[in-house]
Amino acid sequence: MLSGVEHDVPDGIGMARLAWTRLPTADGERAGPSTSAGADGELLSAAAIESLDYEVIENYAYREEQAQRSKFWVPYYVMLKWLFSLLIGVGTGLAAIFINLAVENFSGWKYTVTFAIIKHSYFVGFFVYTVFNLALVFSSVYIVTNFAPAAAGSGIPEIKGYLNGVDTHGILLFRTLVGKIFGSIGSVGGGLALGKEGPLVHTGACIASLLGQGGSAKYHLSSRWVRIFESDRDRRDLVTCGCAAGVAAAFRAPVGGVLFALEEVTSWWRSHLMWRVFFTSAVVAVVVRSAMNWCNSGKCGHFGAGGFIIWDISGGQEDYSYQELFPMAIIGVIGGLLGALFNQLTLYITKWRRTYLHKKGKRVQIFEACLISLVTSTISFVLPLLRKCSPCPQLDTNSGIECPHPPGTDGNFVNFYCSKDGEYNDLATIFFNTQDDAIRNLFSAKTFHEYSAQSLITFLVMFYSLAVVTFGIAVPAGQFVPGIMIGSTYGRLVGMFVVKFYKKLNIEEGTYALLGAASFLGGSMRMTVSLCVIMVEITNNLKLLPLIMLVLLVSKAVGDFFNEGLYEEQARLRGIPLLDSRPKQVMRNMKARDACKNQKVVCLPRVSRVVDIIFVLRTNKHNGFPVVDRGQNGESLVIGLILRSHLLVPLQAKVDFQNSPFPCGPGVLNRHNFSDFVKPASSKGKSIDDIHLTEDELGLYLDLAPFLNPSPYIVPEDMSLAKVYNLFRQLGLRHIFVVPRPSRVVGLITRKDLLLEEDSNNDVMAELQSTSVRSLLNGKMLGGNVHLERPLLDNLVIE
Amino acid sequence: MLSGVEHDVPDGIGMARLAWTRLPTADGERAGPSTSAGADGELLSAAAIESLDYEVIENYAYREEQAQRSKFWVPYYVMLKWLFSLLIGVGTGLAAIFINLAVENFSGWKYTVTFAIIKHSYFVGFFVYTVFNLALVFSSVYIVTNFAPAAAGSGIPEIKGYLNGVDTHGILLFRTLVGKIFGSIGSVGGGLALGKEGPLVHTGACIASLLGQGGSAKYHLSSRWVRIFESDRDRRDLVTCGCAAGVAAAFRAPVGGVLFALEEVTSWWRSHLMWRVFFTSAVVAVVVRSAMNWCNSGKCGHFGAGGFIIWDISGGQEDYSYQELFPMAIIGVIGGLLGALFNQLTLYITKWRRTYLHKKGKRVQIFEACLISLVTSTISFVLPLLRKCSPCPQLDTNSGIECPHPPGTDGNFVNFYCSKDGEYNDLATIFFNTQDDAIRNLFSAKTFHEYSAQSLITFLVMFYSLAVVTFGIAVPAGQFVPGIMIGSTYGRLVGMFVVKFYKKLNIEEGTYALLGAASFLGGSMRMTVSLCVIMVEITNNLKLLPLIMLVLLVSKAVGDFFNEGLYEEQARLRGIPLLDSRPKQVMRNMKARDACKNQKVVCLPRVSRVVDIIFVLRTNKHNGFPVVDRGQNGESLVIGLILRSHLLVPLQAKVDFQNSPFPCGPGVLNRHNFSDFVKPASSKGKSIDDIHLTEDELGLYLDLAPFLNPSPYIVPEDMSLAKVYNLFRQLGLRHIFVVPRPSRVVGLITRKDLLLEEDSNNDVMAELQSTSVRSLLNGKMLGGNVHLERPLLDNLVIE
Repeated sequence: MLSGVEHDVPDGIGMARLAWTRLPTADGERAGPSTSAGADGELLSAAAIESLDYEVIENYAYREEQAQRSKFWVPYYVMLKWLFSLLIGVGTGLAAIFINLAVENFSGWKYTVTFAIIKHSYFVGFFVYTVFNLALVFSSVYIVTNFAPAAAGSGIPEIKGYLNGVDTHGILLFRTLVGKIFGSIGSVGGGLALGKEGPLVHTGACIASLLGQGGSAKYHLSSRWVRIFESDRDRRDLVTCGCAAGVAAAFRAPVGGVLFALEEVTSWWRSHLMWRVFFTSAVVAVVVRSAMNWCNSGKCGHFGAGGFIIWDISGGQEDYSYQELFPMAIIGVIGGLLGALFNQLTLYITKWRRTYLHKKGKRVQIFEACLISLVTSTISFVLPLLRKCSPCPQLDTNSGIECPHPPGTDGNFVNFYCSKDGEYNDLATIFFNTQDDAIRNLFSAKTFHEYSAQSLITFLVMFYSLAVVTFGIAVPAGQFVPGIMIGSTYGRLVGMFVVKFYKKLNIEEGTYALLGAASFLGGSMRMTVSLCVIMVEITNNLKLLPLIMLVLLVSKAVGDFFNEGLYEEQARLRGIPLLDSRPKQVMRNMKARDACKNQKVVCLPRVSRVVDIIFVLRTNKHNGFPVVDRGQNGESLVIGLILRSHLLVPLQAKVDFQNSPFPCGPGVLNRHNFSDFVKPASSKGKSIDDIHLTEDELGLYLDLAPFLNPSPYIVPEDMSLAKVYNLFRQLGLRHIFVVPRPSRVVGLITRKDLLLEEDSNNDVMAELQSTSVRSLLNGKMLGGNVHLERPLLDNLVIE
Repeated sequence: MLSGVEHDVPDGIGMARLAWTRLPTADGERAGPSTSAGADGELLSAAAIESLDYEVIENYAYREEQAQRSKFWVPYYVMLKWLFSLLIGVGTGLAAIFINLAVENFSGWKYTVTFAIIKHSYFVGFFVYTVFNLALVFSSVYIVTNFAPAAAGSGIPEIKGYLNGVDTHGILLFRTLVGKIFGSIGSVGGGLALGKEGPLVHTGACIASLLGQGGSAKYHLSSRWVRIFESDRDRRDLVTCGCAAGVAAAFRAPVGGVLFALEEVTSWWRSHLMWRVFFTSAVVAVVVRSAMNWCNSGKCGHFGAGGFIIWDISGGQEDYSYQELFPMAIIGVIGGLLGALFNQLTLYITKWRRTYLHKKGKRVQIFEACLISLVTSTISFVLPLLRKCSPCPQLDTNSGIECPHPPGTDGNFVNFYCSKDGEYNDLATIFFNTQDDAIRNLFSAKTFHEYSAQSLITFLVMFYSLAVVTFGIAVPAGQFVPGIMIGSTYGRLVGMFVVKFYKKLNIEEGTYALLGAASFLGGSMRMTVSLCVIMVEITNNLKLLPLIMLVLLVSKAVGDFFNEGLYEEQARLRGIPLLDSRPKQVMRNMKARDACKNQKVVCLPRVSRVVDIIFVLRTNKHNGFPVVDRGQNGESLVIGLILRSHLLVPLQAKVDFQNSPFPCGPGVLNRHNFSDFVKPASSKGKSIDDIHLTEDELGLYLDLAPFLNPSPYIVPEDMSLAKVYNLFRQLGLRHIFVVPRPSRVVGLITRKDLLLEEDSNNDVMAELQSTSVRSLLNGKMLGGNVHLERPLLDNLVIE
């Protein structure tokens, strides 16, 4: 569909050769208009292609349009691609800033007001705090349940599925975008045990998808000028950019975003895409940084206090000794165990929710969210109250840390329900605080023994339980920040013991908290490289890289022993059939035909009666049908694959119906617009029930040749299923034909046959071992045993 | 070959189903022992598989051996894989330290001695300096020409080719490793305009490959215990780890190493491999950091002065204004132009060298290298002499910079041929210095106007010319450091103008030098993400990421306008046929049969006479032959692909020869060792000329079935060549059969057919759009227009 584009264009999968092969009709006669045949005697067959996953039709009209505009088209297309990457970056960056701004200000205001009130009455303070949280959570759950149901949860499993090739209805709509943004402001601002990072990834993906389809058609916001990304592959590339932008915006980690998209999200990958994804991430970084610089002067209220690096611990632990590796490995084991437990518990709860609770309707979902908000508010307010305050330690005046820190600012040593001024409440420092500040406090260096083991354990148990229960309620929810909270708590706990145990080393508890956070995320999400880089980027400390990696290696290995990663579990639960990167063990002993032995293959003849087509479409749910025809000698030939969705287009248009059962000529596709065949993003597409035909029309014929994909990938029936799996997964296919063993080989394609321009300088090529047949033709017959009889070589050489 | 392994195992491509299909012989009779047939009536056919690129044979004996040892085998295999990754990391790290140690000490000693002598006589100093350089370069070129010819150059094009699927003879030998290490010490220590980074990548790859094959067989250093990586895929994974380790060691940039391997080197990639590559890189980081900590106390002579970050500019420019973006874009344009020019000039010179100069033998090569060494020494000594010294500027005492810096230490402001003590020679600061120090000086912050424009331009012109001429002489040579030198020179030049022009901004010339370096590397090597990350990691300044990216975007775009990247050009020149990630434009209009239309396909019958096989092998150079047989109805059937190298094994062993022209039974492969079929790394393998047969033997027959790959990938003859290209490239194939259109479809494989375990919970799956046929069989016939006639559905349903 984009032939002629030289630079960064969807490659051959998305391209079609337009070949109208002359195929005799079933009864041996030729039909169709006498258009001039090609040099090889071929005239008419098909003009359809297989896009990376979704097959897209290419037709004459479209090609001509292409050819006419190709001069301006190519630079326009390339420019637009980069422009869209830029826009995705800017959009996601702005969305992230907006969410951050809102959340920080809501939270900041909430805590300021609460702290002001509790000077007079703790009860009123608790009431205000609870009501404030409840209102925010209610707004979030109300938006999600009534307006954008697809905005619930983190969205990462669904996006993963989309990029793996599975559409989930509604995940990339405009309303989902809006619901996600405002919903996550409510849920995060409302103090629930969840984060805004996952939703930001989803937000980025939505922005990218909406840009790709030229805006939202439903709200009349779409523009024809930018609707050039009609292939699914282009759209998917954009969504990949959006994911990376989301991570980059959430953690201000551009490299981490690229690697996240690479490792976690996309099923296939090209280095050209990588560069564009990286560009998008960098744009996000620039936008977010500029906004934060602007906000630093206090123009954004409570937002903008921290720098670009979220939890900067670059001034932390400078070095580590080999003695510390053992406690660090222990952190990894704890992370693996707690992470796997988290996955398992959330799996059970989500199953229960899906089966019983959420079937009872929206009110139950709203009630559930509000209840959890009440419980969370109560725990986070009341538990610190029960905790005795500690006296402030002697602090280095150069460190810039105050104890207790002045009200209305962020920092360690929160004075909450303390009898004296020189005291602080260590549980309130982490519990009665915004999540970002709590993590900053846990990661902080030069604050030895700030937290008592008792407080940390209390917090760990309570927050872990809250996170498990909160996961899966009908609000936008990310698991990164809760995971960091949980992990850094036990990490800091281990750090405290290490400080006590190895007395003389230069150990920072904050470093252990960071490692704990990495270990929990590793044990739960099972990410590796991207998580590592994200942790490095959010803390701006490259030196900790090997330690983070050690911890991740251990926690992932421990977690893998028990169950799958969080996103995989959730995706499976939601019925998103993700394909692993590797085939299952059992496939090695199976053949291609074993995978489809229970199938009845429904073929369509090239020219079918409309009534037959309708019957076939109604009586099964197949999405692809082989089309067969008779060859010149009367033998049957498979001439291609037709998709249900493409078949519906001519059935609905009716203009292609014909009286005769003979093939039509070329040019028929001029009657259709290319865009008719493009499936709109995030919709279910056409259905057979939308088609209404009269009885006369049912008796007519339809030539399928113009609408089919003439060369789907094929495998012989006794190929190992594992090999088939690789073909399917690596090329991102939707359909593979399983065919009988071929009767002959027309040719062998090797590396040299695919290096077209190399023909000219064969002298250089000859240095290599030749794998091609060409050298034989060049006449280099080798000498040999002259007494060899002339063998039956002629029989061996076909063609 | 590794069935039963659950974790991180080569996937199905490397696996074979072992199916002995009963195929009647050519004359219709059945032959072979009456072994019990499978349920589906198949008995005997083949046991060969296609490894990722190289086809590997699997046989009964091997499988049984596997089954017996599988309990211990699986953990042993996994453990060994990680152990090898660790060893590669340690080995490459130690090699890098050794090279650095030697180079820094040789250079340091050279400059110390020279500076000591020139206090008395500049002439004697020049003489000593020149002779010292000459001796080092001579040792390097002597080692390379006489001992390890494959160690010349950077090695990256060859490694790229290896991972793309093209073996270059000798690049991964033990002698190449040794030659590379000692050769690069000589060439870098000898002050030539080249770097040690490319050679380090090659070194890492060699270490990995040697580990993978269990040591070097030639020098009796191999061990059977570790020779388990017999599949080419395993070896290639190890080499990928080695490449990443090389970059990580060269730049002390672990993340950059991973991305380099990902972007530049490997043709295919899996997320499991990524994690192992990352592990290797982290090990390198730990090893190098530990060694540098140890050296920091002065135990390593001149080495160890800098920290872990090579050119730390984290204390540099804090922020940038939007006004600066324009000069930065200009740097990008300059980088693109100079980089493309560099590629073009080196291409011409290399062509000339290959065609004329290096054909004249080793002596010419040695003479050439020595001549260039003399010229380099003369230029770098004499030019600074001609430059007038400048008076030292007023420096902040807190900055730690002294002017002139004391002799014997590294730093800015070198006093060379200056009349007064308070003066320095700006040209000598960059020219008469080690490369690392020169770059550090160019990148340095808070040294405004240290260099005059005249000096920078002189250096740029001279060094650029030297780099172009030096590229391609017979010593190990990297292009990273020269590229950084060239780029940072004009970068600093632009920076100087910016400082003059925008007076009040907080601009550091060193930042511009860094951007210049990035731009030149981007314009020459056309790397993107990995280069970006490497630049960030070597300077430890995350904040510059968006700027580096901007510069890279511009320079790559400008460079791409003129020619291909340096490594691609060099690979093409050396006859390494790299496959692009995208098919060529012209392929979109070609069909599969067009690629092989000039071929004569040479088929072998299943049971062939030995004399015929020998004739076929002698009279052409094909590496793969289709094997045909007769089906039950006498029709011809393609039963698989046999490789030349595999065919040579039974021909040489002779034990499989038989008197009868009928197929043999199973069990024949017990006579062969699996390892007989494995091609040794970096050797040319067996040749037909090694096989000597008597006339009696020539008259016997050989059944090829046990040795063939029963299901190579096939494509229909009218498939778009672009689609074929993608199949070939994505799956890393060596041979594809082009076959006629199939006559029928046995089945259709869709996503759901590949999700084997999902059968149980169909209720969830039903939520999705069904793409499988199974739902039809479950009996969900849809209602519809009841007045529809019963169509000819029976005709449509095959099987």
